[in-house]
Order: sequence, then C-alpha cells, then structure tokens
Amino acid sequence: MKAAILTIGDELLIGQVVDTNSSWIAQQLNLAGIKVERKISVGDDAEVIREELERLLRFVDFIFITGGLGPTKDDITKNTLVDFFEDHLVMHEESLQNVKRIFKNAGREPNAANIQQAMQPLKAKIFVNLNGTASGMCFEKENKVVVSMPGVPFEMKSMLLNQVIPLLAERFQKVHIIHKTICTQGIGESFVAEKIEDIESSLPDHIKLAYLPSVGQLKLRLSAYGVAAEQEVNEYVNKIVERISENVFGFGEATLQEVIGALLKQQNKTLSTAESCTGGYVSHLITSVPGSSAYYKGGVIAYSNEIKIQELGVNQQVLAEFGAVSKQVVEQMANGILKVTGSDFAIATSGIAGPDGGSDEKPVGTVWIAVAGKGGMFSKDFKFGDNRERNIIRASLTALSILRRKFLITDKE
Amino acid sequence: MKAAILTIGDELLIGQVVDTNSSWIAQQLNLAGIKVERKISVGDDAEVIREELERLLRFVDFIFITGGLGPTKDDITKNTLVDFFEDHLVMHEESLQNVKRIFKNAGREPNAANIQQAMQPLKAKIFVNLNGTASGMCFEKENKVVVSMPGVPFEMKSMLLNQVIPLLAERFQKVHIIHKTICTQGIGESFVAEKIEDIESSLPDHIKLAYLPSVGQLKLRLSAYGVAAEQEVNEYVNKIVERISENVFGFGEATLQEVIGALLKQQNKTLSTAESCTGGYVSHLITSVPGSSAYYKGGVIAYSNEIKIQELGVNQQVLAEFGAVSKQVVEQMANGILKVTGSDFAIATSGIAGPDGGSDEKPVGTVWIAVAGKGGMFSKDFKFGDNRERNIIRASLTALSILRRKFLITDKE
Repeated sequence: MKAAILTIGDELLIGQVVDTNSSWIAQQLNLAGIKVERKISVGDDAEVIREELERLLRFVDFIFITGGLGPTKDDITKNTLVDFFEDHLVMHEESLQNVKRIFKNAGREPNAANIQQAMQPLKAKIFVNLNGTASGMCFEKENKVVVSMPGVPFEMKSMLLNQVIPLLAERFQKVHIIHKTICTQGIGESFVAEKIEDIESSLPDHIKLAYLPSVGQLKLRLSAYGVAAEQEVNEYVNKIVERISENVFGFGEATLQEVIGALLKQQNKTLSTAESCTGGYVSHLITSVPGSSAYYKGGVIAYSNEIKIQELGVNQQVLAEFGAVSKQVVEQMANGILKVTGSDFAIATSGIAGPDGGSDEKPVGTVWIAVAGKGGMFSKDFKFGDNRERNIIRASLTALSILRRKFLITDKE
Repeated sequence: MKAAILTIGDELLIGQVVDTNSSWIAQQLNLAGIKVERKISVGDDAEVIREELERLLRFVDFIFITGGLGPTKDDITKNTLVDFFEDHLVMHEESLQNVKRIFKNAGREPNAANIQQAMQPLKAKIFVNLNGTASGMCFEKENKVVVSMPGVPFEMKSMLLNQVIPLLAERFQKVHIIHKTICTQGIGESFVAEKIEDIESSLPDHIKLAYLPSVGQLKLRLSAYGVAAEQEVNEYVNKIVERISENVFGFGEATLQEVIGALLKQQNKTLSTAESCTGGYVSHLITSVPGSSAYYKGGVIAYSNEIKIQELGVNQQVLAEFGAVSKQVVEQMANGILKVTGSDFAIATSGIAGPDGGSDEKPVGTVWIAVAGKGGMFSKDFKFGDNRERNIIRASLTALSILRRKFLITDKE
C-alpha cells in the first residue's frame, strides 16, 4: 500500500513555517506498514489542491492532508474537498458539541466562524478533534482513501494516532519495511564511509545504507523493503557497529541525553553542569528527558567572569593569565560545580561561540570541554566552525558524549 | 517567475529527517522576487525524479533541487540529471582541486568515491562547494532552469546565497511580493480573530491574512502579491497592532530573545536567570543571541531543592510549607539570583513540566514565573498543557514576555 502526504498552506511556500507534520506522519505510516511515495506542499489554492489530488490518486492508495481547516478565511481545504468529492456540508452534531465544549472551557462563546467549523461533508467519516475546533475527515472513492486533518501539530498527531490509524488499520496490507538506525557522535560521514567501505560494498541489492548527518551527530540507516530481511539487516548493523563502536551511542530514535540519563539512573549517580559558551543548552538537553530530576541536580550558567569566580571558585589569577577559554579555567569550573552540588559528575564548557570574540590564537569555534568525576578529570579543546547556533549544539553534544565514553561506560570496556 | 523546490532522499519519506531546506530556500526565493508554487519530496528513485522534473517544468520557470549529491551509493541525483538532460560526465578540474583541498585540510587522502564527486556534467554550469565535496549544477533547457545543490543545510545555504542567486538574479523578473508579519506572545488565535474581526472582513481581495500559531507564540501575516500594495498592507498592520498592542513584541523574523536583548542593551541593564522547570531553556534562548554576554550575566539551574536553598537562598521552611512550585519560592529564587549576580533584572521559573510529578492541586503544566527588578516583583502562575517539551517552551517564552511587558517597555506606556 502506498501513500502520499499533502500539506496545505501559503506559509509553507513562502518558507515561514518548517513542515514538521509530514515527516512525523511518514514515520507513523511506516510503522503501520504504509510506504510514503511522495510528499507535496501546496498553497491555499483550490485549483492546485484539486490538481494534486487527481494526480496522486492515480498512483497511491491513501492521501493524508494537513492544514487549511481553521476558522479563518484563509482556510479552504474543507470546501475544496467537498467540491472534489461532489459532496455537501451539513451540521455535524458531534463536532458542534465539541466546539461548544471547547469554548465553554475557555469561558467564551463561539462566534459564527467557529460554528461554521462544525459543518461537515455528508459522505465523509468525521473525526472529532479533541484538542481543537477543526474536525478531520475521511473520504473514500474507488477504493482510495483521502484523509484531511488539522495543521496544528499536536491536534493532528492525536487525531492520526487515536482516530485515523485505528479506523484504517484493517485496510492496510502490510508490507515488510525494516529500518535500523545506528546513532553516532564525534565521527564524520566520509570517515565512517572509509572505515566500513568493504561492508557497504558487500550489501545485497535489497538492503540500502543511508548516511544522515545532522549538527554534531551522524546516523546510519539500513533499510530493507519487501523482504523478510530483519536478521540479515541486524547482521550488517552488528558488523558496522564493531568498526565504530566508540562513537555509537544508541539505535533508532535514541538521543544522547536519554542514553546518558539511563546510564546515570542505572549507576545511581548524579550530574551537574557549569556552562559558559553553551549558555544553558547542555542543561536543556539533559532536562528535556522526563524524570531527569532523579539524576540531574542543576548547574550554573557562568556567562560572566564574575560568576565563574564567585559561584564556581575559578581563580582570578588563572582567569587573567590563561583567559576564560582555557584548560585551566574549564577544569576549575568543573571542579567548582562538583563541590557546590556534591554531584558525582560535572560537565563544564567554555568557548567562543561567535560570531564575534575570536582571536588569532583562539578563533571563533574554539571550545574547551571538561568532564569531572570521582574517576578523575578529562578535558580537551575542540575547533568547531563559525556558526554560533551550530557551535552551541556541537559543543553540548560533544560534552555529553565525553561523559558517556570516558565516565559512564568505562567499566564495560 | 515561478519556482518549484524538489528535495530528494529516502530519509524524507520515512520521516527520519525534517526537511528544513525547502522552507529556507522558499524564503530566499521570495526575497529575490520568485514565487514558489510547489514543494515536492521524493525518494532516491531515478524514475520518480524524472517524472517530477518533467511535470514541474510544464508550469514553473525554475526548479531548485537539494539532496542526493553525496559520495555514497545512495546518492543518484547527479546521474539522474545527466540522463534527463542527455548530458555526460567529465572531470571538472575546479571541483577536483576543491575535493583535494578539503581532504588536505583534514589531513587525509580522497578515495575513489570522493574523486568521482568531481566528475560533473559537461553542459551544466558548476558551483564549486566551498564547504564540502559535492559541487552544485545549473542546467538550462528551453529557457527553464534546473539547479541541483547538496542536501547538507549549511553547504546548500552558502551555495544558494553566494553562487546560485547571484548567477540567476538577472533572469528573475521580479514580481512584487509583500509579506508583513506581526509577532505576538500570550494571546490565542481565535481570541485575536475575534478582536480584529471587522478589520479582517474589510481586507481587500488582494491582501491575505494568515494566522501562524507555534508553541507559545502566534504570528499574523499579511501578504499581497502582484500589486504595489505596501502602504496599504502597512495600514492594515497598524490597525491590527493597535488592537493587540500589549502582545505584539516585534515584526517579521523577530524573536522575543532578540527584542529583549536589544531593549536591555539600549537601557544598559543586565539580566540573570534562576530556572527550575525550564531547566536551562530560558538561558539558552537568551544566549542564542549573538552579543548576549553584554547584558546576560548568567544564572543557576536550580533543579534540586538543595540548590534552590544553597545557591539562591530559598528558605527551607518556606519550601517545606508551600512546595517548590509556589509564589513564595519562585519569588525567593528571583530575589536570590538578583543578589548573587547583582544584575538589574532576574527571571525565575518553577513548575511541573511533566509527564509525572503532578497532583490534584498542582497538575502537570502548572508553572510559577517571577520577574524581579529594581522596579519591584511580578509573579504569576500559569496552567500550560500536559506535554513536557511544549511546557518548557511556553514557560520560557512567557517569562521573557513578562520581562518585556512589565519591566522593559513600561516607560513607554
């Protein structure tokens, strides 16, 4: 079974909004055994929407649409679908009650546009939106299915998972799609390619390897379609992991912060942070994991030198002699926060994120990272690039990776 | 002039990667006066790529392609384009020198696959990639242009801005596209719609209003195509801003953290933070702005109660009596960090981000926010939702918004 995803909204075509819906939908459909063949974004334009529907229905079984269902005048998806399927709108009692409920909860009265949202196509199956006023719709024609959902991500997600997929599940003729993803940090794409060149050359035609670099990380994905190749894929995964084991921190959707959280919990250890150039991003990553308060005590954002001295006990002379971006200072920061919090491990960062503040000796992108624990201290300088946002992310992920490799998994190695 | 964007890669169709390239390209093309009509994502499949090229060239003047130019075996874009344009590959000396240069800088030797990347289509104009080994290409046929760029965002961005747009600029017959965006915080979509209902109804046909909600923020965009309507659009913008002025923090691509940074700089004031539930996200937002060290001193991530007491001077009895998520504690946190850092303003947050930790009295999503300054203290509790990630973002943006509205722009009002 094949699907297409059609996202609707002028904001997508002028680049004001990044379309995160379609990748999330694609993930869910993959899990449900549906292969996505194409993703299309079009504006709020009835003629273009019709044209894409006609075309896509020639080669896919399902079309999943998001966007254009709001109460405001720029939202035309519902009327366009009603025309396309030669249907007409009637008041949908359940949707009306839902709109009234939502406004009652907000202590307000729905206006005419909100009531109009409860008008729904007669022939469609309607999905009442528990998180908003825009209902979803499912049309069928000649054994093809067109689903329309709201564009607000969390409304759409709940509707797809809890209403749409359960309704359609029995129609899905599952094909076997296997994806295995290896998550790495601290190693580049072409370097990996060289290390595993012979493995890659030996892959059979039905197994595909993809390199997926993102800021500070590299994922390797092995995919097999249509064949019951799970064991075969796993064997290749193992071969690859063996070559680059130091840099592999997990599989699938694993994040470094989750992996570290799980290791700290398992070992009953605590962590704290002393951040300068990363400005809170390390702690944000750590605390983005539910339950992180079990192992993360907190930290200091030592953006100014005063705070480095006063809160972390960095020595003023050392600071003057070596500068804030130095081995000496970052180690004192790590030791300082260990002392303040009494945690088992500490991460410290100090660098020049950019775009300004660099010098010949310490150009933009220079970052010192220290990780301290009862097992000692590890510190190292890195030269990242000249982009502030990327430097903050790369430094933060590198710091987490050092904690994992040098302190949390050492027993195993 | 009309364009389409074609992004290529299996990872886009299985939802492993969010396509940020196409929205960025769309923005840049808009600025250059080119309207994007459609965005398409397809897999690494030569037949599908050909089919989309043929179709899109029937109704657009330009196609911008990203992805599939890497050295690895899953990258087929170059060969597909060579077939499509009935061209053939020859060694491109400049690209070869570039590949050698990049490997030399990394202290390594290019392998055969890397050398192969320097083979380029004879008829195309080649863009040497200063940030990577994959060159870009520009094909022309019957007055239509097809540009192929690497998929790695920062390589593509540099190539589009510095090489592609300058080459094509003289071909762009600019149409007048005007977008004006109003950025708001702390006010919902339907609430705004009600407040400006009469203004919206009075909009002429050639001016479109779009509501663009994202987590913790709402943007309103007025657009006009094809008419020299700038002044008219500005008048509507002013009318709308007047109705919701309290919540408007900026225009266009403004971020709350930039606006606050500019106000602090202007007023020569400093800021510090004491974060519990937001776990570093407030400080990350603040420090994501270049030059923020001029006004941001730093802060404490007081994730554990110990740190709240020890580093911020929160009273142990008060903590026991009212709990960490309380007016009393969050105000003590704000006062505490003011004292520690000597800054002019302080932001403090304490709440239950979820998914666990809620109670009947204080459900998940309850967040106390305090902002303190020499002008006094403002604190308030909020009930956000049940999603951890969204709660952290909403609380952080709300805190920045309170600082702006209650402390930084009070003189003006």
